[in-house]
Amino acid sequence: MTSGAAVDAVVRAGGAHVAPLMARVEERLAQLATGYGATLADHAGATIAAGGKRLRPLLVFLAAGEPGALADRLVRSAVAVELIHAASLVHDDVLDHAPTRRGQPTVIARAGRTVATATGDLLFSRAFAELAENGEADDVRALSAASSSLAAGELMQRADAWDVAVPLERYVRRCELKTGSLFEAACRLGALAVGGPAETLARFGREIGIAFQLLDDVLDVAGPPSRTGKARGTDLLDGTVTLPLILAREGDPQLAATDLRALDGPAAAEEICDRIAATGALDEAKRRALELVEQAKGELPALPDGQRRALELVADGVVERYA
Amino acid sequence: MTSGAAVDAVVRAGGAHVAPLMARVEERLAQLATGYGATLADHAGATIAAGGKRLRPLLVFLAAGEPGALADRLVRSAVAVELIHAASLVHDDVLDHAPTRRGQPTVIARAGRTVATATGDLLFSRAFAELAENGEADDVRALSAASSSLAAGELMQRADAWDVAVPLERYVRRCELKTGSLFEAACRLGALAVGGPAETLARFGREIGIAFQLLDDVLDVAGPPSRTGKARGTDLLDGTVTLPLILAREGDPQLAATDLRALDGPAAAEEICDRIAATGALDEAKRRALELVEQAKGELPALPDGQRRALELVADGVVERYA
Repeated sequence: MTSGAAVDAVVRAGGAHVAPLMARVEERLAQLATGYGATLADHAGATIAAGGKRLRPLLVFLAAGEPGALADRLVRSAVAVELIHAASLVHDDVLDHAPTRRGQPTVIARAGRTVATATGDLLFSRAFAELAENGEADDVRALSAASSSLAAGELMQRADAWDVAVPLERYVRRCELKTGSLFEAACRLGALAVGGPAETLARFGREIGIAFQLLDDVLDVAGPPSRTGKARGTDLLDGTVTLPLILAREGDPQLAATDLRALDGPAAAEEICDRIAATGALDEAKRRALELVEQAKGELPALPDGQRRALELVADGVVERYA
Repeated sequence: MTSGAAVDAVVRAGGAHVAPLMARVEERLAQLATGYGATLADHAGATIAAGGKRLRPLLVFLAAGEPGALADRLVRSAVAVELIHAASLVHDDVLDHAPTRRGQPTVIARAGRTVATATGDLLFSRAFAELAENGEADDVRALSAASSSLAAGELMQRADAWDVAVPLERYVRRCELKTGSLFEAACRLGALAVGGPAETLARFGREIGIAFQLLDDVLDVAGPPSRTGKARGTDLLDGTVTLPLILAREGDPQLAATDLRALDGPAAAEEICDRIAATGALDEAKRRALELVEQAKGELPALPDGQRRALELVADGVVERYA
């Protein structure tokens, strides 16, 4: 799902109603970015505009199908999900001291930690304000569960940092918290709005979200930097142990005994990446992600053809990021 | 409102139902602190337990009066307000690199910036999760407006930092955003639960919240450190210009020309505090806060005697912090 063309194909498959809904999301996000004073416009505005593919709003609409009279509710849900995503990116960049994201300077790089922390808080708050207008407690419940999970995932990642022996189950749970939960909420919000099969679609969202994170973690090791926009092994330097290393450590005792704190720079991290790749762990990790995507697709409930096809395309898009 | 005895007096005045409701808030906060894994229990647990006077939950209950069958809703509202307050404290401490709060090490001091930022995010999210259980869109609307205001106030403070010429109106607006908004939400949530006069009580909350912040800012200049737990002039060293300096600069051109960035430490900040005090600005600032408290009390709607008396005592408590 890295190419705009792939997203366009999904939007088309989803039906004629999807593109106008996506346009309404952009319009509302732009409104919100300018509606809270110059500081927010400067900082959150840039974050929101830098944008990405709006995968989560798209999932809201695809999980709902043809919305009929419920378009307003769906748009608010989609905007709220994207605001939570933007808030979490702003705070992640604070934690990582990230200089750029999607080729743009991050809020923390532009304006410092104070503004970045407060900007993230404001985006979080506006997400719930937006969703409150739906007047649906189930919506707020779904979104607050997801935003709690995002934070809990971040705390878990910190608790497990530098531990090369972290259990696989804990890693998968972290992926669920950090990424699966918001994909899940997006699908749930879409289904809730139209009275669709919320639990089944929520599970679909959770599974492709986890697969998305698995592949993200593969890309950190596999690169190339020209594609990912960051050096290989960035996670390792942060002490973040992910699936490739977890799988590779089984077959390579030297990897299992690595002290990540002792890595003294990008070159040392790349060396570890090469060792991991040599074990075949990248292919195995990719295989597991693909399996999860197939499982998610197989569990989709009965849906109108276009809607089902569009959801399958999104799931495939998660995998195509790697291809 | 610094003494536990003053809070106890308010609780008694509010009626026999208040103390049990406050106890339920403590119980629920303790539950939440232990319900999200060891990391949250360690960090947010400490923050929540360090506690303070639970002024905002108290306002929820006092604004509601006798709740009858609505006690569950009120307790959730009170817990949600306190969680937003705790979240904002955790993030404020990150921004200020504060080593202690209420005599306890802060989350950032204990566990670093990553954990502190994520802990704050989790507390924010749990606040909305708690409130969602009320199933009332108006409740979510009130709380998200307040949490947006908190963040906007922080951004405004950053935008106005080091500006000794900041207009009085902007300063008062900042107090409203940073402090008045959550007091307002507490009163509004209480009134909403019982169908009480929400707008009038919300205004009361906002006004005593602003007065609370004015007096806090006076204490930063007046000290003594033995009482406030921090050196005099801490705000000045952060570039935060507050009412005492705003009033003092009128009569002291040298203060008006001060470059706060040039202050080279606590001794220099204390010197500015002394200059401010010499203009009589502290008494004038205090007088304005008192005036605001009196105005708030005068605007209270018709309420049962005990409820009204308890709200007046809270308002007086804001002032007594200074006495």
